[in-house]
This record gives sequence, C-alpha cells and structure tokens, in this order.
Amino acid sequence: MLAGDISAGVVVAMMMIPQGMAYAMVAGLPPVAGIYASILPPLLYALFGSSMTQSVGPMAIVALMTAAALGPLAAAGSGLYMVLAAQLALLSGIALLACGLLRFGFLANFFSRPVMSGFTIGSAIVIAWGQVPTLAGAALPRFHLPSLMLGAGSLLLLLAARAWLARLLRALGMGPGGADIGVRLAPMVVVIGATVLVAWFDLAAAGVKTTGAVPAGLPGLNLALSNGHWRALLQPALLIGFMIFLISMSAAQALALKRQEKLHSNMELIGLGAANLGSALSGGFPVTGSMSRSAVNFSAGANTPLASVISALLLALALVAPTGWLALLPLPALAATIIVAVLGMLELATLRTALRYDRGDALALVATACGVLVLGVEAGVVIGVVLSMGTLIWRASRPHIAVLGRIAGTEHFRNIERYPGETAPGVLLLRIDAGLFFGNVEAVNARIEEELAAHSAHCFTRHLVLVLSAVNAIDTSALFGLIELNVLLRHRGVKLHLAEVKGPVLDRLKTSDLLSTLNGKVFLSTAMAWDELAGKG
Amino acid sequence: MLAGDISAGVVVAMMMIPQGMAYAMVAGLPPVAGIYASILPPLLYALFGSSMTQSVGPMAIVALMTAAALGPLAAAGSGLYMVLAAQLALLSGIALLACGLLRFGFLANFFSRPVMSGFTIGSAIVIAWGQVPTLAGAALPRFHLPSLMLGAGSLLLLLAARAWLARLLRALGMGPGGADIGVRLAPMVVVIGATVLVAWFDLAAAGVKTTGAVPAGLPGLNLALSNGHWRALLQPALLIGFMIFLISMSAAQALALKRQEKLHSNMELIGLGAANLGSALSGGFPVTGSMSRSAVNFSAGANTPLASVISALLLALALVAPTGWLALLPLPALAATIIVAVLGMLELATLRTALRYDRGDALALVATACGVLVLGVEAGVVIGVVLSMGTLIWRASRPHIAVLGRIAGTEHFRNIERYPGETAPGVLLLRIDAGLFFGNVEAVNARIEEELAAHSAHCFTRHLVLVLSAVNAIDTSALFGLIELNVLLRHRGVKLHLAEVKGPVLDRLKTSDLLSTLNGKVFLSTAMAWDELAGKG
Repeated sequence: MLAGDISAGVVVAMMMIPQGMAYAMVAGLPPVAGIYASILPPLLYALFGSSMTQSVGPMAIVALMTAAALGPLAAAGSGLYMVLAAQLALLSGIALLACGLLRFGFLANFFSRPVMSGFTIGSAIVIAWGQVPTLAGAALPRFHLPSLMLGAGSLLLLLAARAWLARLLRALGMGPGGADIGVRLAPMVVVIGATVLVAWFDLAAAGVKTTGAVPAGLPGLNLALSNGHWRALLQPALLIGFMIFLISMSAAQALALKRQEKLHSNMELIGLGAANLGSALSGGFPVTGSMSRSAVNFSAGANTPLASVISALLLALALVAPTGWLALLPLPALAATIIVAVLGMLELATLRTALRYDRGDALALVATACGVLVLGVEAGVVIGVVLSMGTLIWRASRPHIAVLGRIAGTEHFRNIERYPGETAPGVLLLRIDAGLFFGNVEAVNARIEEELAAHSAHCFTRHLVLVLSAVNAIDTSALFGLIELNVLLRHRGVKLHLAEVKGPVLDRLKTSDLLSTLNGKVFLSTAMAWDELAGKG
Repeated sequence: MLAGDISAGVVVAMMMIPQGMAYAMVAGLPPVAGIYASILPPLLYALFGSSMTQSVGPMAIVALMTAAALGPLAAAGSGLYMVLAAQLALLSGIALLACGLLRFGFLANFFSRPVMSGFTIGSAIVIAWGQVPTLAGAALPRFHLPSLMLGAGSLLLLLAARAWLARLLRALGMGPGGADIGVRLAPMVVVIGATVLVAWFDLAAAGVKTTGAVPAGLPGLNLALSNGHWRALLQPALLIGFMIFLISMSAAQALALKRQEKLHSNMELIGLGAANLGSALSGGFPVTGSMSRSAVNFSAGANTPLASVISALLLALALVAPTGWLALLPLPALAATIIVAVLGMLELATLRTALRYDRGDALALVATACGVLVLGVEAGVVIGVVLSMGTLIWRASRPHIAVLGRIAGTEHFRNIERYPGETAPGVLLLRIDAGLFFGNVEAVNARIEEELAAHSAHCFTRHLVLVLSAVNAIDTSALFGLIELNVLLRHRGVKLHLAEVKGPVLDRLKTSDLLSTLNGKVFLSTAMAWDELAGKG
C-alpha cells in the first residue's frame, strides 16, 4: 500500500513539472506559478476533499479560462496579472467553499454530459490553436525555423509515443499499468531531451525561447490584492468555480467507478475551495482535479491522499534545489506537450452515441463546442447551461399523453393507439406520462383541450379522468394549472376526475384547495373510475 | 358584435391616453412617446398576433426595464435617449420575430409561476417607489406642497374608487361589466379633474409640473439609429423581449381561459415582434400585451381585433386634433395613477398557496422579488430563470426510488415501506419514479449503490431489477449512466435487469448499445422478472 502511494507520488511529481509550467503558460503566467499551484493545493485537497486519488493542480481548460478572465484586465506576465490570478483563485475558492457549506452539490447537474463533452472539445481546440505560435516560434504564417523544428519534432515524438509506446513497452515485458505510466511520462522525457538540445547547441542564442530564470525557493505565503478589481473578477470567478467543480467531479466520477468509491459532491466542493484558497495564498492561479493526472495517480498505485502529499513535497524540493536547469526548458517543446495533452480531450464517443440515440443532445454538444470556438470559453459555460436547460424545457413542452381504452374483459387500460381497447361514450381517460411542473403546464393543458375537442366531436364529454400513475410530482405552477382546468371544465359542465394519484403526490395535493373544489372525484384505480362512470356516460 | 368592438375601442383609447403618457414617464421618455407607442403596435398586433382581445401598448414593467437599460447610456428625455428607446424596441422586436419564426414558443416555460409572481411584485414596488418624488413634487424627505396635495388627493380618490366605486355603480343600477369599466376609467376622470384644477388655479405657475407641450400630428415613420450602441443594447433587448413575451403570454392566457380561445405561443411571438418593430418605427419604445388593459378590452365587449384598430384610430385622432389640453396634465396626478395601477399587481395569492403547498416555490418567489428590489429589474429576470431552473434541478437531484416487494399471492408489487410485501433473497427490485436525465443521473446511481449495499448486508445480491414503469424518458447522459452501471455490476457479478420499460423508451434504447451489452434481461413485467429470478436467487 505505502509503496504504491510513494511510486504514484514520484510519477505525478515528474508529470507535474512540465505540465504545471505549460499550463501556467496557457494562463498567461510565468512558468513557476504552475509549480507553486501544484504544492499547497493538493495538500489542502488531501485534507478536505472527498476522493482518495484525485490529483489537484493546474489544468488546461481552467488555465484557458484564467487567461480569458485576466486578458482584458492586465498585460499577461505583468505583476498586476499575477496578483489578479491569485485573486481569481481566491474568489473561486470562496465561492466553492460557500457552495460546499450550503450543500449546493446539486449545481453539478446544470450541465448535461453531451454539453460537457462539447465544452471540452471546443476548449481543447482553442487551447491547441493558441499554442501554435509558441510551437512555431512566431505568429503564423511566419515561423522561426529552429523553434519550429524543436516544436514539431517534439510534437511528432509525442504523437508517436501516444500511438505506439504502450505497445512497445509491453512487448519489452512491462505490465499494462507500467506501460501506461511510461506513456504518461513521455512528455517529461521529450521536454528533458529538448532541454538538452537547447543547452548543447545553445539554441537560446539562436532565438529559441525558453522558460527563463525560475526563482529558487518556496513561494511566500501572502496575498497581494487589487481592490479596484473585485467587481470585474466576480463573474469570471463564479464561472471558473463552476467549471472547476464540473471538471473535478467528472474526474472523481471516473475514479469512483474504478475504485467503487462513493462521491460526495459537497465535500468535493469544500476540498476544491480549500485548494484554490491555498493556490491564492502561494502565488498560484485557479486549480482543479484533472482527469488525466488523476488517472496516472491511480494507475501508478495511489491508494490514499499520501500520494498527493509526496508529490507536493517533491515539487517543493525541486524549488529548493538549484533551479537553473528549469530556466532552459524550450517553450516550443512545452507547447507540443500542451497540444498533445488537449488532443486527448477530443473524444468523439459521446457525439457518436448522441447522434444515434438523441439528435437534440447531439445538437447541444455541437452548439456548445461552436459557442466556445466563436464566442470564447466564458460564454461557452453560459451557453452550456442554457442549452442543457433548453433541451430539458423543450422536451418538457412536448409531454406524452395517451388516451386510454380498456382491454376487453380485463381491468387493464392501455394507450388506444398501441392496443385495441374499449372506450365509453362521454368518458375520456387520459394518462399523463410526465411529472407536472412549470415547464409543461401550458403544453399539458393545451393537449387536454385538444383531446377533449376531438373526443367531443362524436358525443359530448361528461367526464374527464386524468390518470396520474406516471406523475411523480406536481409543482405550484402545475397546481394552478389544474385548478384553472377544474374551473374551466365546471363552466362547461364537464366533470374532472383524478385516478391512480401516487401517495406522495396525493399527500401534497391535500394541502391545497384543488381536492376540496374538485368538480369530480379522486379514484384509487382507473378500473374503479371506469366502473362508476362508464355506465352513466 | 360590432357594437361591442366599438365601445371597447373607445374605452381602451380613453384608458390609454393617461396610461400611455404615465408609462412613458416611467420609461424616462416624453409623454407623447406613450401615445405613439399605442397606435401602430396594436394595429400590427391585430394583423399578426394570436389573441383576439389582447391590448398591446406601453406597460409598467417593460417601461421600467426600458429605463433600466437606457439609464446608463443617455440622459433621460434627451434626443439620444429617444433614439435608443426606439432602437431597443427594434432589437426586442427582431428577437421576438426570430423566436416566433424559429418556433421557440417553449421559451415561455423558463419561468415558473411563483417566480413570475415574485418578479411582478418586486417590479411593482420599484415602480411605485420611483413615482413618489413625482407625486410629492420633490425628492423625499422634501416636498412641494401644491404638488403633494394634488398627487396625494388623486391617490386617495383612486384608492377609494378601487375600494368602493364598483359597489356604488352597481347600487346605482349598473351591470357588473359596466361597473368594472367605470372603475377602470377612474384614472382618466381623476387626471381630467386634476387638469381642470391646474388650469383653474394656474397651479403650473405655482410650480406643479405638467406634461408640457405635446407635439401635434402623427408620429413620422422613420428610424434614427445610434450605431455605437448596438452592443450595449443587445443584452437588455433580449431580456426585455423575454419579459414582453412572458407578460403578454400570461395576459393572453387569462383571456384564453375566459374566452375558451386557444393560445398560439409562436404566433404571439410574431405578433409582439411586429408590434415592437412598429413601435420602433413610430418613435415609441418596447411594448407588450397588458393584463389590465386586455381585461378592460374584454369586459367592454371586444370580440375581434377591430376593437384595437378603433382604439388606435381614436388615439391618432387625438394627436391630429388640438393637443394643447394634453400639455396641462399634472405629473403628480399621473404618478398617482401609476402607483395605483402597480398596486394592483401586488397579488399575494400565489405566495399564500405556495407557502402551504411547496416551500421551495415560496422561497423562489420571495427570492426573485428581493432580487428585483436589491439588484434591479434586469438582474431580476436572470435570477428568475436561475431560480426556476434551480428548483427544477434541485428537485431532480432527490429522485424517488422505491424498493418493491410482492403483495403475497398476487402479481402486484408495491413499495415495501408503504405495504407489507415479500422479497426474494438475492433479488433487489427498485422502481425509479422519475424520468432519467442529466439532472438526476448521479443521484439515481448513488441511490442504487446505497440500496445495493443495504440489501447485500443480509445476503449477496445477484440480481438487480430496475422497474421503469414511471420512467417516461432517458436522455443521453442517463444512457451513459446506465451503461456505466451495467459495466460496474458486471465486474461485481451482479446481473442488471430492466422491467416494464415503456414503449417509446424501449424504442429509443434499441438504438443504443445498452441492450446488446446488458448483463441481464429486459422483462415485460415485474411479475415475469420475479418468476424467473426469485426461484434461483
């Protein structure tokens, strides 16, 4: 057990050095901020978080959102920019903590899975495209040949590693877990190789940009704040906090499936809130649990949060040890690691399933991805929520309602469109196949009107029976809808009856005026309603 | 029939003159803009709208939102302000038309009824409070005595009319409809009386503010635009367009209930879009269907849109005739009519019902009202949508799931917490009482885990049967949830079965991989699952 945590800690630390520095670049910060954000946050998450093997630190999408939030407020890399990055982590952390204490874990349910997939795909493309100038050493269509060679070479090596390294390592006798870890460490190896090339051929003198001097020593614990920027940071901080939670929850969920752990969304909020406060205190920027890093942590044998503690200590050691070598990491190679990392987020399985299973969800996925590409990552979050809710409300506005008929000689009542059933003159049986709430109350009333009109074409309808066997809840808006329907039908001389009302729904209705003013009866079963009404029809 | 339309047209025109001018004041515009906005918009709505008796024109809440949108962009009453008001109507009109053509009528379902009630209450308080300085002739705690006397006198008269006039008129032999119309015309009478007082005692010279010169003649049809303001107007225009639609829909809905008309939300969008384009073209500001005016129109006998045409023509005539008298309307009396009008929107019946029936909805109502009061009317719209969706998602995260037992000797299966039922060792029957979608997939999986753990405490569970009789739909997110559950259970040696899957749900599932990889069976009924599994358990 302990051995597993130690090896996982070492592997994750080795992965975090290039990754943290690279994501700090994406966020528009000096590379060392990425290492700072990988020390205190995982320690605090280990204390307060819910998942045993989650690895918390910088993450590509959150780094992109940080850059999008700070871009309009300060020049990337400036002192103010660094202050604002920490302040953003502070605000996000406070929001996450508050949501956790208020037990608002249900907020994770505002994004549907297809929308999350679309958001991830859109962000991955934006991040990859943003790294192309760094990879080429100049803004396209120009390029700087030594940088481009280094960057493109790293990119090809990393793509090759992704495609073949696992198979190669297994052919050399490694187990599947070890081979997987080998693949995950390829970026580290490629970056070290590129650094050696830079040192050997003095490529920095030839114009290849490197990370530059990294200040030695641990980050100081302090919090410089810009009082003029609270308001401007608030909305981005809330959006970033929301995405931190969503991203971390999907990583935790994937791990929980593998480890048969339970997810505690409120504890996850508190753990992430503490981690972001820690990041703010130690010169970092917003952090989250990362799917790819957590998967490595798990595969490398992590069993307890001790793995994260070890990895944080190793990173702290790296800063205390001489850091001269860190200054020579070539940016084109780091850009290549970012591009390959985010290519891994371009999964199309969700889109493929949604296209076959539910076109509306597929459309929401594509629209969210396009929203991120066209309008940016912040607007993308809002678009994602709007589309998730939009598909929900749109579907609710098309409730399924069946006209029931009796299967002759039985007490069974079925949709007359699917089964041949008897009907009684003057009696209309409607089964509503949806919980009644504000999103469908108009549509349900409109459908009832239509069915009444169609039914009354043959013979005047005296009794309308709403069969509520599939109605799991009735909210206040729908209660008003039923009360109005009752009044309307009374004026027309039609009796409104309810049948098969579920226990909890009936208990709730008893606190309202509907039952006492109901112009018909409440029947336990459809058969009882039929027996009483069909004779008189 | 024709007589009814003519009398309704006359009554509504008489109501519209003071009301239109008063709401123009609320919007921060010269009073004549309120009359302009009452001519072309109802004509265009009559051509394209869906309701026969809806009266479209200026409305208090929409006027308040107009002021909130334009306040930061221009000085109230300035030329730019008037240009921007028309531009706002143009943008809202385009948005409404576009939504109508795209058949986005379901957008009305984003607000629950309690939230709409809270929004209305909050807005009414903001509007009434905003009129107090006009009523008193100076900003509180100061006041201008002649203005205050005129304003407070009008207010008391109007309140008295609301309380007793209908009863008085009926005692004098009027029918209930006529008495109602008399009450609705009280503001007109009070304003005329106050105008006579102003003229008689030359109160304008004493410092009582009046509407001031009203330009004679019809509004010119043209559209001055400020090209620098499109971006700043876009978001307010969308929010205002949304509220225009919601307000008009609830008025149309109340009328439809009385007249047994059908509502066509997409045609309503198109009619409102056309009306707002007309308002933009003729120097007006955003308009909507008003509940109070439409109710008067209906009570006064309107049967067809001809009533609106007549009222528009009369208002046009009023502008062509000498308009000198319109200049003398005293602002304190107009403020009193606004205050009394919006007091009518302070209905607490929804709150009272929600408090008894559903605390969550009552909380959403109060929170929306407070949101409007504290953060303003624009933020209030967003808060309303967020709270409507929030209650929905929060409820979804607490799905009802029942463990089923067999009622001995029958084929009926019931919740073992409510009925004594037999269970079989090794077989767990769970009925999920909610449609499966992204909002509850985590919660449902967590509950299934809990029930499995509880059940396996006695004896290892070999078979899990999900009874889907109340599941009306399964979206893509929930499909992934089921696929993951299936994989997880297979690893643990538990078979996952489905029973009583509804026809449309099963048809949909057949397009996915779930059924082909399902590690158990799909049973037509719970009884069939029991017969096959309970023996082997």
